[in-house]
Amino acid sequence: MRITAAAETEFLEKVFQSVGFSAENGTLLADTLVDADLRGISSHGIQRLDWYIRMVQDGTIKPQNQIKILKETATSMLIDANGNMGQIASALAMNSLIKKAKTTNVAMAVIRNSNHFGTAGYYSRLAAKAGLIGISTTNTRPLVVPTNAIEAFLGSNAFAFTFPAEPHPFVFDGATASVSSGKIMVLAKNQKPIPGEWAVDRNRNVIHDSKKAAEILSEVAFTEHQSGGGVLTLGGNQEENSNYKGFGNSLVVELLTGILAQGSISADTSTGKHDFSQFFMVINPAFFGDLATLKANAEKMFDRIRHLDHVPGTHIMIPGDREYRNYDNNLKQGVTIDPKTTQEITAIAKKFSIDLPQAL
Amino acid sequence: MRITAAAETEFLEKVFQSVGFSAENGTLLADTLVDADLRGISSHGIQRLDWYIRMVQDGTIKPQNQIKILKETATSMLIDANGNMGQIASALAMNSLIKKAKTTNVAMAVIRNSNHFGTAGYYSRLAAKAGLIGISTTNTRPLVVPTNAIEAFLGSNAFAFTFPAEPHPFVFDGATASVSSGKIMVLAKNQKPIPGEWAVDRNRNVIHDSKKAAEILSEVAFTEHQSGGGVLTLGGNQEENSNYKGFGNSLVVELLTGILAQGSISADTSTGKHDFSQFFMVINPAFFGDLATLKANAEKMFDRIRHLDHVPGTHIMIPGDREYRNYDNNLKQGVTIDPKTTQEITAIAKKFSIDLPQAL
Repeated sequence: MRITAAAETEFLEKVFQSVGFSAENGTLLADTLVDADLRGISSHGIQRLDWYIRMVQDGTIKPQNQIKILKETATSMLIDANGNMGQIASALAMNSLIKKAKTTNVAMAVIRNSNHFGTAGYYSRLAAKAGLIGISTTNTRPLVVPTNAIEAFLGSNAFAFTFPAEPHPFVFDGATASVSSGKIMVLAKNQKPIPGEWAVDRNRNVIHDSKKAAEILSEVAFTEHQSGGGVLTLGGNQEENSNYKGFGNSLVVELLTGILAQGSISADTSTGKHDFSQFFMVINPAFFGDLATLKANAEKMFDRIRHLDHVPGTHIMIPGDREYRNYDNNLKQGVTIDPKTTQEITAIAKKFSIDLPQAL
Repeated sequence: MRITAAAETEFLEKVFQSVGFSAENGTLLADTLVDADLRGISSHGIQRLDWYIRMVQDGTIKPQNQIKILKETATSMLIDANGNMGQIASALAMNSLIKKAKTTNVAMAVIRNSNHFGTAGYYSRLAAKAGLIGISTTNTRPLVVPTNAIEAFLGSNAFAFTFPAEPHPFVFDGATASVSSGKIMVLAKNQKPIPGEWAVDRNRNVIHDSKKAAEILSEVAFTEHQSGGGVLTLGGNQEENSNYKGFGNSLVVELLTGILAQGSISADTSTGKHDFSQFFMVINPAFFGDLATLKANAEKMFDRIRHLDHVPGTHIMIPGDREYRNYDNNLKQGVTIDPKTTQEITAIAKKFSIDLPQAL
């Protein structure tokens, strides 16, 4: 089922206001979900609504709490999200850093006491729009097994990096783990096998049964119980394929988020205080050279890569190519809502007496 | 054959002065190589000496050229290494950033017109010693095939990240590619097969014959000829194992180095102007909280990870554990010099009339 982005936005704004968010914050939350759906990142789109609403209703999310700026200098911010949705403190942080970096060339923010913030790329794309380099990262619930371990400990720990370019910025955005848990959940929902080295059981054998993998992930992410297994670090199951490098990348994110914020590390968000932490940075490339020249040089490099000799039948895509193509298509055709999400939002519409988008 | 670090240092300092480096720069260059040997990173130790000397003699390296600071603010530097060794501009940059970040909380530098700088970790460890977070990265000769490509284009692009901790800092340091070319060269020298998904041929079939892989890498890194193949991005050969994430990590480094510096991108260092570019950053964690507390929290996380349930017969190591253990051992036992390197430095000693370390 497809609905227009405009209809999705209108519906989401009404829902968020119904559960206590301000009009301004409801608009922001709606925009982050619609933006993800337009880009084809449906794991972070409207299918998260039911989970968000449940977190508001069980008190995990406090929609009326004000964000607090705890410390601020010309280059640096420490922010308390105060138990509200991650999107609110994150957009505030990124918009402030964009102003700062135009003067100081580099600026950074750490957010504590936060929650899910949508896609990491949403915030670093704000920097790209302003002609700046953006970096955005978050810790998550524990899902990932370090090299040689059989227990999950690390978050899937999203990382986004954007660089201004035409016709669209360079947007590298995703979990530092081999995959996000969302990709496994989607396969399980569709009863399809896992095609690669994504997850292991408690003996560290690769799992191809997505239902079995999804069960392990639900247990490690949402209960205090650990019977072993989890998502693999980038590099897969074997140390000889350098999976300790993926482990290192995940640890960099843990240090910049939970540790710098003095919040929970990923491992403790399922057993102790449930909070996430975020880290943002903006760099002004124009300090180093004329922005138009830097962009042209980056674009030339991307084009050369797109046209390298490649395996017949495949394509070489630069990070961002796929999501901007999806964006253009979905803006015309509407975004796809899967049957389970349609059910969920139908119940939400009824509960809050809000009209469903007509196409549903 | 083992020699003491002191004997290695004395020998290297004499050699570097003989070929025209100042006493101060010779001491720095020697320290970067001895430090790598002590840490067991022999690919970046004294075995590089012969290559360094050849680059001085063919005019690629200009040992008497002065580093030029082209632009500088309270947070930012653009530096011209002026064709001298990368170590010289890099140490200058990192020492300046350490001072800056103590005042501004974050500072960054880009170096153009540079060359090999040793290990990336050398510079970010300087930040860790000062209680700061250090980031260090460089582009390299072209060695790495993007996702689906059969031609090398990206550098192996080293990245280091350090975070202060006891008994030693967190030190994540290595190629963003699945492996550095040095690891393949060492296997080829010892006639051992490649154990994992490290390199592919022109049909993108994984190569296990290290001699064949080494031949491909020599061709792509040092000639204008490309008959195909190269090192894989982190994630290995298959797109379904998320090798596009390793590709993305490599591109982030290309953007922060060759593009921001307006120097050569990795792909062009073998065919056009031979220059490397570097990017450094220092962050002051004490802006976000008491340093002793942050360190203690990081250490607690590392210790919990070291003691997670793991596959019998394996160990879980935190980035840095191995190299600090090697450092302590090699400081006592001396560093190992392989037979081929012994031959090379014997010839260098003779050429410049310098005494070889006694043990050789």
